[in-house]
Amino acid sequence: MRIVITGGFGFLGQQVAEALLKRRTLCGTPVDRLVLADRFVPAGSPLAADPLVDVVQGDLSERLDEIFARPVDVLIHLASAVSAECEADFDLGMSANLDTTRALLDAARAQSAAGGPTPRVVFSSSVAVYGSDPALPLPPVVGESTLPTPQSSYGTQKRVCEMLVAEYTRKGFVDGRVARLMTVSVRPGKPNAAASGFLSGIIREPLSGLPATCPVGPELRVALASPRRTVDGILRIAEAERGSGPGQLDGGLPVNLPALTVTVAEMLATLRRVAGDAVADLVTVTPDPAVEAIVGSWPAAFDNARATALGLAPDENFESVVRAYVADHPDAVAAGSLPAPGAIGA
Amino acid sequence: MRIVITGGFGFLGQQVAEALLKRRTLCGTPVDRLVLADRFVPAGSPLAADPLVDVVQGDLSERLDEIFARPVDVLIHLASAVSAECEADFDLGMSANLDTTRALLDAARAQSAAGGPTPRVVFSSSVAVYGSDPALPLPPVVGESTLPTPQSSYGTQKRVCEMLVAEYTRKGFVDGRVARLMTVSVRPGKPNAAASGFLSGIIREPLSGLPATCPVGPELRVALASPRRTVDGILRIAEAERGSGPGQLDGGLPVNLPALTVTVAEMLATLRRVAGDAVADLVTVTPDPAVEAIVGSWPAAFDNARATALGLAPDENFESVVRAYVADHPDAVAAGSLPAPGAIGA
Repeated sequence: MRIVITGGFGFLGQQVAEALLKRRTLCGTPVDRLVLADRFVPAGSPLAADPLVDVVQGDLSERLDEIFARPVDVLIHLASAVSAECEADFDLGMSANLDTTRALLDAARAQSAAGGPTPRVVFSSSVAVYGSDPALPLPPVVGESTLPTPQSSYGTQKRVCEMLVAEYTRKGFVDGRVARLMTVSVRPGKPNAAASGFLSGIIREPLSGLPATCPVGPELRVALASPRRTVDGILRIAEAERGSGPGQLDGGLPVNLPALTVTVAEMLATLRRVAGDAVADLVTVTPDPAVEAIVGSWPAAFDNARATALGLAPDENFESVVRAYVADHPDAVAAGSLPAPGAIGA
Repeated sequence: MRIVITGGFGFLGQQVAEALLKRRTLCGTPVDRLVLADRFVPAGSPLAADPLVDVVQGDLSERLDEIFARPVDVLIHLASAVSAECEADFDLGMSANLDTTRALLDAARAQSAAGGPTPRVVFSSSVAVYGSDPALPLPPVVGESTLPTPQSSYGTQKRVCEMLVAEYTRKGFVDGRVARLMTVSVRPGKPNAAASGFLSGIIREPLSGLPATCPVGPELRVALASPRRTVDGILRIAEAERGSGPGQLDGGLPVNLPALTVTVAEMLATLRRVAGDAVADLVTVTPDPAVEAIVGSWPAAFDNARATALGLAPDENFESVVRAYVADHPDAVAAGSLPAPGAIGA
């Protein structure tokens, strides 16, 4: 089985790749090759050096021939321009998110049309497809049958791609499925241009001893998932068989990954409880209307029934999310930011 | 005011153009120029000869410069590849429906970005955006907040374009609004490649003395609108002001044009009642699974609240639809197909 991950050296791409290299199988079939496609490949990446891994570097739209030079069994499409940059540069978002996804779908379709395997395509979409339209406010609890009325260019592009994946699947060109990712928190590494970036930053930066700005009022409710749960969700959706039985996927509906609903105030209180006042005081709340408009338009509470039917569950609570971050990224926590391990959450 | 109608020499385009030439105003402003853009222009068309009309002939995507050579105030985008041809030729539909609409939106956006007027764009969508997904059957009554899960390429392309119109509007690039057309019946003229074409053909052909095939079981329920009501709906949506007041349009939701729900059996019974047994016996019912699959996936009953708020109403009953067809197209009715005028519907 040859698996391709676009955005393979992005934060989630690397985590999905590492999980696959650990498991060595998907859908019960051994992973022969793992192709990581990305514009940037970190120097000295251990992933890139793995004997099972092939690296395809460059703009996706220019590397399709290389990706499809040998049959693609599973395509996990994570590459994307993020929300704030799509809002700032409309053409960039349309090209990077819509046109590139369509080109990938057409390349996958060409493979099956030429007699090759019908690629399984996992498209990573986003909670940003939802928004509160002036004529149709979001319901208090959102599910996959809720009409997405995106209030951002990014959300529109994601929703359009979801529909294309469903249509290419209905036509039999690909076997597509859509995972709608919740805001992932806590992301490691550096801030990115996602409007939701602060939902990691307000935990990650203080833990590393740096100040952080929270650009929304603390009463804002958000729907989050830890990186671990997000990776589990992507792989489960990749593995799901088609059909109408339990644990199977039928039709063209996306799957919203399970969401933990918290307020920003609860997130900050968790940080204070776990890491103490000195760390929590590194966060300054300075609302930014542009960020509040985007993130505040996303739903905060979900009906997780479809994800539950696949065996997926949300994070237990936000403290478990912070604990997992600390456990997975010990180097990103400044000495003295945390009490002794036994004392965390005591 | 310079108004452009794409598909301007199509059946609906001509009717909208004639209505505008009769009214001479839109939104209270005189119509200075009416541009009819179409691939085909009928020889000797009286519309083309009207002194207020400019004709732009050719593929839309190659005629954008000509269309936008002078400022466009209102763009009524009716041109489209129809459902059955989109299902048969996927690439044709993606190009004619999705790419061309996006190119039009980008040309409109370029006009406003260059300091010209922000064009009002009326996009004609379709009831075909709705379909019954295996995991999410259509509700018995459908409204604009119902999630469209199209089960045809045409419906997917229309839904994607609706979302682009909403997004270009949210960004302020255009002032877009979407009219979702019901199946129009009775269309005059020749059969086209629309899967729904028979819903006109089973009335039109027998009235002209020709045999007709009905490719669905008579129990199928459909949502129809007469040409007159459809043209009224398009123009009303073009005229609606933006805002949250009564009769105004807010946000990005489409407007489903008002629908008359009838069964095919009721349509055939109306024909028999109005035109007699000899005419009605010209219809042969021969179900075609491909057509039944497409048309049967469309909803048949609508919540017309949004259209009603704009002052629009469905046709009274199917007999009024047939009467209007006979009145508007006396030449298309064979001598002897109808009783004396006073006797119709008696």
